[in-house]
Amino acid sequence: MNEIMKHVSNQDWANILIQALPYIRKYSGKTVVVKYGGNAMLNWDLKLAVMEDLVLMSYVGIRTVLVHGGGPEINHALEKIGKEPRFVNGLRYTDEETIEVVQEVLAGKISKEIVGLLQRAGGKAIGLCGIDGGLIRAKKVTSQDLGFVGEITSINPSVINTLLDNGYIPVISTVALGEGDDTQAYNINADTAASRIAVALKAAKFVQMTNVPGLLRNVSDPASLIVEASKEDIERYKKEGIISSGMIPKVDCCLEAMDGGVERTHIIDGRVPHALLIEVFSDRGIGTLIYDNCKGKGVNDSPV
Amino acid sequence: MNEIMKHVSNQDWANILIQALPYIRKYSGKTVVVKYGGNAMLNWDLKLAVMEDLVLMSYVGIRTVLVHGGGPEINHALEKIGKEPRFVNGLRYTDEETIEVVQEVLAGKISKEIVGLLQRAGGKAIGLCGIDGGLIRAKKVTSQDLGFVGEITSINPSVINTLLDNGYIPVISTVALGEGDDTQAYNINADTAASRIAVALKAAKFVQMTNVPGLLRNVSDPASLIVEASKEDIERYKKEGIISSGMIPKVDCCLEAMDGGVERTHIIDGRVPHALLIEVFSDRGIGTLIYDNCKGKGVNDSPV
Amino acid sequence: MNEIMKHVSNQDWANILIQALPYIRKYSGKTVVVKYGGNAMLNWDLKLAVMEDLVLMSYVGIRTVLVHGGGPEINHALEKIGKEPRFVNGLRYTDEETIEVVQEVLAGKISKEIVGLLQRAGGKAIGLCGIDGGLIRAKKVTSQDLGFVGEITSINPSVINTLLDNGYIPVISTVALGEGDDTQAYNINADTAASRIAVALKAAKFVQMTNVPGLLRNVSDPASLIVEASKEDIERYKKEGIISSGMIPKVDCCLEAMDGGVERTHIIDGRVPHALLIEVFSDRGIGTLIYDNCKGKGVNDSPV
Amino acid sequence: MNEIMKHVSNQDWANILIQALPYIRKYSGKTVVVKYGGNAMLNWDLKLAVMEDLVLMSYVGIRTVLVHGGGPEINHALEKIGKEPRFVNGLRYTDEETIEVVQEVLAGKISKEIVGLLQRAGGKAIGLCGIDGGLIRAKKVTSQDLGFVGEITSINPSVINTLLDNGYIPVISTVALGEGDDTQAYNINADTAASRIAVALKAAKFVQMTNVPGLLRNVSDPASLIVEASKEDIERYKKEGIISSGMIPKVDCCLEAMDGGVERTHIIDGRVPHALLIEVFSDRGIGTLIYDNCKGKGVNDSPV
Amino acid sequence: MNEIMKHVSNQDWANILIQALPYIRKYSGKTVVVKYGGNAMLNWDLKLAVMEDLVLMSYVGIRTVLVHGGGPEINHALEKIGKEPRFVNGLRYTDEETIEVVQEVLAGKISKEIVGLLQRAGGKAIGLCGIDGGLIRAKKVTSQDLGFVGEITSINPSVINTLLDNGYIPVISTVALGEGDDTQAYNINADTAASRIAVALKAAKFVQMTNVPGLLRNVSDPASLIVEASKEDIERYKKEGIISSGMIPKVDCCLEAMDGGVERTHIIDGRVPHALLIEVFSDRGIGTLIYDNCKGKGVNDSPV
Amino acid sequence: MNEIMKHVSNQDWANILIQALPYIRKYSGKTVVVKYGGNAMLNWDLKLAVMEDLVLMSYVGIRTVLVHGGGPEINHALEKIGKEPRFVNGLRYTDEETIEVVQEVLAGKISKEIVGLLQRAGGKAIGLCGIDGGLIRAKKVTSQDLGFVGEITSINPSVINTLLDNGYIPVISTVALGEGDDTQAYNINADTAASRIAVALKAAKFVQMTNVPGLLRNVSDPASLIVEASKEDIERYKKEGIISSGMIPKVDCCLEAMDGGVERTHIIDGRVPHALLIEVFSDRGIGTLIYDNCKGKGVNDSPV
Repeated sequence: MNEIMKHVSNQDWANILIQALPYIRKYSGKTVVVKYGGNAMLNWDLKLAVMEDLVLMSYVGIRTVLVHGGGPEINHALEKIGKEPRFVNGLRYTDEETIEVVQEVLAGKISKEIVGLLQRAGGKAIGLCGIDGGLIRAKKVTSQDLGFVGEITSINPSVINTLLDNGYIPVISTVALGEGDDTQAYNINADTAASRIAVALKAAKFVQMTNVPGLLRNVSDPASLIVEASKEDIERYKKEGIISSGMIPKVDCCLEAMDGGVERTHIIDGRVPHALLIEVFSDRGIGTLIYDNCKGKGVNDSPV
Repeated sequence: MNEIMKHVSNQDWANILIQALPYIRKYSGKTVVVKYGGNAMLNWDLKLAVMEDLVLMSYVGIRTVLVHGGGPEINHALEKIGKEPRFVNGLRYTDEETIEVVQEVLAGKISKEIVGLLQRAGGKAIGLCGIDGGLIRAKKVTSQDLGFVGEITSINPSVINTLLDNGYIPVISTVALGEGDDTQAYNINADTAASRIAVALKAAKFVQMTNVPGLLRNVSDPASLIVEASKEDIERYKKEGIISSGMIPKVDCCLEAMDGGVERTHIIDGRVPHALLIEVFSDRGIGTLIYDNCKGKGVNDSPV
Repeated sequence: MNEIMKHVSNQDWANILIQALPYIRKYSGKTVVVKYGGNAMLNWDLKLAVMEDLVLMSYVGIRTVLVHGGGPEINHALEKIGKEPRFVNGLRYTDEETIEVVQEVLAGKISKEIVGLLQRAGGKAIGLCGIDGGLIRAKKVTSQDLGFVGEITSINPSVINTLLDNGYIPVISTVALGEGDDTQAYNINADTAASRIAVALKAAKFVQMTNVPGLLRNVSDPASLIVEASKEDIERYKKEGIISSGMIPKVDCCLEAMDGGVERTHIIDGRVPHALLIEVFSDRGIGTLIYDNCKGKGVNDSPV
Repeated sequence: MNEIMKHVSNQDWANILIQALPYIRKYSGKTVVVKYGGNAMLNWDLKLAVMEDLVLMSYVGIRTVLVHGGGPEINHALEKIGKEPRFVNGLRYTDEETIEVVQEVLAGKISKEIVGLLQRAGGKAIGLCGIDGGLIRAKKVTSQDLGFVGEITSINPSVINTLLDNGYIPVISTVALGEGDDTQAYNINADTAASRIAVALKAAKFVQMTNVPGLLRNVSDPASLIVEASKEDIERYKKEGIISSGMIPKVDCCLEAMDGGVERTHIIDGRVPHALLIEVFSDRGIGTLIYDNCKGKGVNDSPV
Repeated sequence: MNEIMKHVSNQDWANILIQALPYIRKYSGKTVVVKYGGNAMLNWDLKLAVMEDLVLMSYVGIRTVLVHGGGPEINHALEKIGKEPRFVNGLRYTDEETIEVVQEVLAGKISKEIVGLLQRAGGKAIGLCGIDGGLIRAKKVTSQDLGFVGEITSINPSVINTLLDNGYIPVISTVALGEGDDTQAYNINADTAASRIAVALKAAKFVQMTNVPGLLRNVSDPASLIVEASKEDIERYKKEGIISSGMIPKVDCCLEAMDGGVERTHIIDGRVPHALLIEVFSDRGIGTLIYDNCKGKGVNDSPV
Repeated sequence: MNEIMKHVSNQDWANILIQALPYIRKYSGKTVVVKYGGNAMLNWDLKLAVMEDLVLMSYVGIRTVLVHGGGPEINHALEKIGKEPRFVNGLRYTDEETIEVVQEVLAGKISKEIVGLLQRAGGKAIGLCGIDGGLIRAKKVTSQDLGFVGEITSINPSVINTLLDNGYIPVISTVALGEGDDTQAYNINADTAASRIAVALKAAKFVQMTNVPGLLRNVSDPASLIVEASKEDIERYKKEGIISSGMIPKVDCCLEAMDGGVERTHIIDGRVPHALLIEVFSDRGIGTLIYDNCKGKGVNDSPV
């Protein structure tokens, strides 16, 4: 027996497993798309915990898809070749050398490392990028000059579905392929890509793992966490300035996913070990649930 | 959140789920046959806990089969029609009126009640007896006069496999059908039937839920529990008189199952809430593991 | 050769088989729901003949479902425990002890006996009740106090379809399961349950086996049999008092089945050996065909 | 109701259907190959009866294959183009013009006419010859000069199995295709071809429809019918001269089929209406059963 | 290496294969119906080339169906039995003897010969006529007395789809079966039948192989070939008299196919070796493309 | 029409397609593993030609797998971060920084670029490395210190088969995953990996694309090409010194593949445009065929 759990009685132990039952029932056979970024990716123990969570989800029959980011590692790789990262209005300017580095780091390094860890934890995983099977198509952003930054033009989820049908966890790097004869790779926004993939897969749940506790009424007070919010609430919070700066694109991805038919979206704190597991399999509040008021909700995602 | 679990921290909570992962991995897709009898069936809360355990097993992909007993309820029903239960050498003498009561109580009452509880817990369950689909065939015992007591002549597991393939938990009452043109129902030993079914299904695990802590070196000292024993150990214990009286048939069913190819057999304490869950999904010792020394073992069934 | 058939010439023999051909063609692959009750169930030879009919139907590819009753046997079992059957407005008052007896007799005794006979006749059969797989859900009747008498709230035919797809004949006892967390068993009307099941299965034919010759213009004159009647005819007969008392619920079940999409409904005489076979595979008039005038008919169900 | 059957009582009628039940059970899902030749093909009413028999067999799940002959019609067609049929040692000398006529009559006329009749009787049928899908390959007989007479070199039953799997009755004309690059059509013996096809399909039964009552001890006395004979019996009858001339090849085809694994072979009287039906679905003796003494028999094919 | 191709360089050789790639991509998995008649059928080398083309189409995943004619061979067979072919308004008067010859020649001779050649070329082929599986139903033409000439009343493509699903190339003779109980064979127009089959199979392409270069502006000048024409163009050409006499029914079949949903129809020159291959797998102009102006076109069927 | 092909006549054009037919027939449904390295990867036009070849192979039903190398690009990437490539006995010394670069370049850059080109050419492709789905497992080479250079311990082809079954072309980078809990990536020899994958997939053909014409008797004389060689020949050539230095590992991979059951292995010249296509679909000699003398051969792989 795991030493550290000895203080938990057999009955507590069993009760916890049993508490997960209604959640397993609810999501077994459904698709959950997880956007994985921020600090959770950089801390080794947290990363291992996320892998265990994903493999457990996969074992109980949840069709689990991971979309990852990798900004810090890209910057680090650019440094190594002596290149200064450059940002225009907060967006990475992506020249030819940069897109190559982005692709190598995301699809060649991070994605494969995650796959290795998932395999070790007992899962079956495959690293894909948007080029594979024509999964994500994009065209050059033209509103401003950002180099090879693309905006998504279509998602073809066939390859993901083939892999999910065969028990694999797809791990997706957000590099896109040009349209038609354009074989250029494009750098695309990972949050947006994750949201679009969730819609294309008709996911039941879209979870963004961040390095904040969720939506806070007062950014400097973790106790001011907004446990759940309807779309209407979100609009009001935006007007009131409660949601601002870096949180706006996260929230907008949730809204976009809901507009596309995803029922529940979450912004959770990737710094909490097993935050994903706790979110999916319990009613212990982790982060913020954003739901569509037309489709009903529940106290932080409790199953019926 | 369930009030009573609030004293368990989020991290303990998550760690427990994660601890179950290697066990889920090990048994997902495998068949586990549970013989359910004794006090666990009579105590309402224990019964509910068993149902939750079975449904959880089913959700994580374990092909779960329940074989139940019902001696006390049969006695109670005989009393109601003013009939004294009669035993010959410890075996129930089963006249025509008695076999009718046995069948009604097992297949009509207990099995359906269990099915109802499993359905409520979110499972899909079906109550079968040995007559359905010709599942268990028997012929009259002739070594002594026991009325309609039968010995099993064949097991046809097709109907069980059909139901398992479609996600159902079969709940089996141990009443058998005669052979060929003989449509008489026969009263058969439930433990033996469970063991034979485990063999016919090529089960990975056969669990007997009893109302003792397992094999004890000293029957009056629960602390003398034998945590695991090889087939050879069992032979020695028998000779030494450590295994005696009521425990002998339980142990023999384990041996018979192992001879038929079942890898691991267990005698566990049905009076411990969620004993089944703890046994299947953890390395916390509950009861006795009897294993085949030729096929290796492990500290009470820890997965590799 | 069967001695008693020697007086039938080879050619008559063959012509009879051939006459069945268009009927086999018509119903092969279709679903036929048979409500089996009344005297046909009590007479041993008649019972055997019904089993042969059902197995033959199953062999030629008809998806055959049997729903059985059992009033007389329930009364007999109540007597054995010294309990007087009690009826309120012709409906059985079902206290806690009674529902237990009802369930035991229907699901534990009658259904399993039928299954045993079907297996002997070469069929593959399974005894189910409304609790199994959540097949029939009910709630307590509240219009009057009848104890645990329920009215059907939903039918979930998945388990029946799974079994039919795998070649089994489901034999259904009409005990229902409460809704949601209510695991109480309810006593429900068998004719209504059969009709509702026929609708849920999109049956092509719904046959009620009774102990009368069918609809009679003059109850005391078997020669006054009404061979076929449209829904309109039925309404008129009701007004004219030709259909009255015990026949009204039978006829109403037919109407309800037709409203739910079943094309042909029959009330046949279970006292005639092989009445079912004759009805399904020939144009020899047995009982009454009630048809929907909007969907056409034919001289007592002759195939096109 | 069919007028001519009115003299048969309902109960006789039903008993006959029920008598067929064990035979249906026995052959459902099995393959039966019927060689159809002789007078049965020339008499219109007999032909219609055979078609009904085949369709009924098909409806109850028997994988039914018809192999037909056509000697008289070939002779008639040769006459029309002013060509004298020519035989060498009892075998048709098949020059280029003749093989063309053989193919046209068998594959173009007889086979398609049978298909049309089977379709009318409610069956699904397809006319094939040995050329289709490379079903029957042959090479020129070289032991004597017979023109384009071939001996079978291989049978490829894929196309037959595809059609049987999809519910069709294949109707096979015995014209073969040369091997490799040889696209010449060859005239082959229909009885032999039927026997070889039965073996290739692992048929459970091979039936030859002839214009004699079966094997007779005394050719001029129909009452001397040999109802059944083992392989050993056949050898003895041959030595004793009881089997001679035209019956020898028929019997040899039975022996060859049995050597290839077919369990039961029959020579029946195609002049008896519905002889096929009576043979397959009853224990009324029609013709001669030849069985393998190693595999057991039964009174003229009664099912267990 | 094939001697005659030595003058083609490796690179030309490879480029040609690669040029076929987009056409393979476009038609793989789609259905193409080819009407095969005229001189292409009479010349042995041309015939072999057509067979190779069909087998290649089949190999690259095109669901390929061949509908053949046979006027000249029918005339020849009639001559052999001393019967003068008789035409009424250009349509063959088909008395009882004639329909028999038509059926024998088409279904017994031509179709089987084609099947043999396709098998030799490495394909899997089956010869069917409209009688098989009730594929083509017809009724007697009543507008004028033409004997057993029929007009198509329905197409049941099930048997074709079964064969295509299993990798066979169906070779279809245009003899039809009467409706219901009418088992008379009918002589029907092969072009019309092919067009109707293309519609029933939802074919992507319908190709008529003729013995003219295609539509010509000036019948005596092959250089005046109309490479492509919209439906509107066709109407205009008809009014202008550019399309006349024998070409009108060909063109009308194309129009009928397009009205039924077929996207592209072609009239090609069967006298050009491999005309079919060139048409399907290249943009080298062979014959005339007739397209639906509503659905767009392309320079003679170039793929996008 | 493609301008450059105008000098090829229609008939030559068609004959070429037809010549490919027997080769398509032979390899359709079979697996072909191509090791792609050398100059063919560096020249843009050659690369496009290879992609077309692979897509064409995929279209005609060949299960096509590409294993690629990338030495020059790895060296280039190391240079960019100012790191000198270091070789020990001709093997790359792979320190931690280097294995990261190897993985990024192979799995992140080259593989995805190839996938993009295959998608453009109309194929469906997925880039995998040995980490994905646990495809290639390795352990550290211990015979000498090479850093993270691994030797293959197992191949798990499940993920490749899943993708091939769904029509994808897997593009494989030869980076391996450690065993068990070791998630380190290892640099492995690409030729060996390709050979092992061919064996694991039971490939029919293993093709190595190199930048030499094949095996040469005289390295400096391309005209001295050895068109085919048996295993025995190879042993002799080795002894005679005809095969030496860089060619030895290539040849050894062929031998290893043949020992594992691959029937035909090829060393072809990747500098010839469409060399792959010409090799697979013609009998025009490209490079060297090495075959197993026990299994027969043919003039450079001509199909039977």
